[in-house]
Amino acid sequence: MGMTTLCYIENGDKWLMMHRVIKKNDINKDKWIGVGGHFEHGESPEECLLRETKEETGLTLTSYRFAGIVTFLSDLGTPQEAIEYMCLYDADGYEGEIKTCDEGILEWVDKKDVFGLELWEGDKIFLDLLMQKVPFFSLKLEYVKGELIEAVLDGERIR
Amino acid sequence: MGMTTLCYIENGDKWLMMHRVIKKNDINKDKWIGVGGHFEHGESPEECLLRETKEETGLTLTSYRFAGIVTFLSDLGTPQEAIEYMCLYDADGYEGEIKTCDEGILEWVDKKDVFGLELWEGDKIFLDLLMQKVPFFSLKLEYVKGELIEAVLDGERIR
Repeated sequence: MGMTTLCYIENGDKWLMMHRVIKKNDINKDKWIGVGGHFEHGESPEECLLRETKEETGLTLTSYRFAGIVTFLSDLGTPQEAIEYMCLYDADGYEGEIKTCDEGILEWVDKKDVFGLELWEGDKIFLDLLMQKVPFFSLKLEYVKGELIEAVLDGERIR
Repeated sequence: MGMTTLCYIENGDKWLMMHRVIKKNDINKDKWIGVGGHFEHGESPEECLLRETKEETGLTLTSYRFAGIVTFLSDLGTPQEAIEYMCLYDADGYEGEIKTCDEGILEWVDKKDVFGLELWEGDKIFLDLLMQKVPFFSLKLEYVKGELIEAVLDGERIR
């Protein structure tokens, strides 16, 4: 079990996306995701968010919103099992210049084009919620061998 | 590190409080808190909330709100260290009858009187936020030997 942050930084109609093509043995290998990572010992969600964003992008966030929590479950009961609680943010204010990241390639992508990239299927659900700016939500996503088998939004099964 | 839910069930001007006087070696010994407990393997926050509420009170929640996340840190760097991420809820709809709980004594308490009970100091901060029905918040509370040494609300130090 782990806790992570995942942040989609906005610039007008674009999101800052990371194409995870660098790290080997990356559960996100070749996928496009936001920036973020695992909590360090005793960190609050915001502390993790600000640290990870700074480390991965060079940017310091100045305006952000705690958008939701994603319960990510993958291959439960197998040796590949992954359980992650992702604190999901969007951010519309930052300072600094984007630097090169050693975990993936950073790129500003039009929001409408993001849905055509290689994404986790369930990411499309929460990215749509981010676009709609719905209030805080809790989304459970369960995968088996990379395929989304269940999605539950605020306690209601939607997929 | 653990993840828990903590829920304050409302009935008019009262909250359902649990007086933790039963369990030995209870980090909450003798304190008054809401109902809830630790996530089981792979549970989403809502699943934990509904299960724990049912187990501890006999009630089935029918209306609840994910109010915030509390990063609870106690005695960091000592053998007594505790790190807990508490998913905080309030609930205003439920079915069933209250049963006896083996973790504490359940009692409906006027909200204004709750602040005079034996509480964790930081609980008064989030109970006040619950009373005001502020939108989703993230609150970090750090204790040393039971004393609150820092409180940070949505990234801003308030104590």
